[in-house]
Amino acid sequence: MPIEKINCAEKFALFQEYWTPKIVGELNDAHIKFAKMKGEFTWHHHDNEDELFFVIKGTLTIKLRDKDLSLGEGDFCIIPKGVEHLPVADEEVHVMLIEPKSTRNTGNVANEKTVEKLDWI
Amino acid sequence: MPIEKINCAEKFALFQEYWTPKIVGELNDAHIKFAKMKGEFTWHHHDNEDELFFVIKGTLTIKLRDKDLSLGEGDFCIIPKGVEHLPVADEEVHVMLIEPKSTRNTGNVANEKTVEKLDWI
Repeated sequence: MPIEKINCAEKFALFQEYWTPKIVGELNDAHIKFAKMKGEFTWHHHDNEDELFFVIKGTLTIKLRDKDLSLGEGDFCIIPKGVEHLPVADEEVHVMLIEPKSTRNTGNVANEKTVEKLDWI
Repeated sequence: MPIEKINCAEKFALFQEYWTPKIVGELNDAHIKFAKMKGEFTWHHHDNEDELFFVIKGTLTIKLRDKDLSLGEGDFCIIPKGVEHLPVADEEVHVMLIEPKSTRNTGNVANEKTVEKLDWI
């Protein structure tokens, strides 16, 4: 893969689907993914993977079992392996995810939101 | 470590030194680091670690042996292991770095810019 500058806004302009992360880079054992989110996802956890959510544009709520985190532009959080979480966005939000290549978007859950094979953009 | 929201601007307000990355989170085998950069760093490479540079504020030039990458706010690049690079910033720039915990800031080089033990903020 050539070494190049990746611009967030340009990448987010390439797709519109919600809850379908796109791979934009790889870093050691991790993928860098961009996702658009709107509405409510699925309660889930990842058995073996910590997951980073970085908000590029908009507002994302990460519901945990004991509290909610409200992330605006320039905010991020790390959800450790094993911790149940539910991403929710009232309005469209653009999010950078960083997680191991092995990570399934719905973690321990398989449902209609599960995406088994992610596309590169 | 508690699960919490991390705000980039708040973290960058906590320190001023240049070229001294601060750890702000851990994600699997990686550290998330914030660094302020101004001036010219040191040509170096990392034998075993890919390294991500994400510009939060300002402009960062990453010189490679065959080209320069100019990264503005919302731009990032990934420097694969083994690739020589030189970060340069005419004005102060705020950068998020993501790299394995084993990474030394000056890679294969040891000089006055080497920081052997990074602080958490």
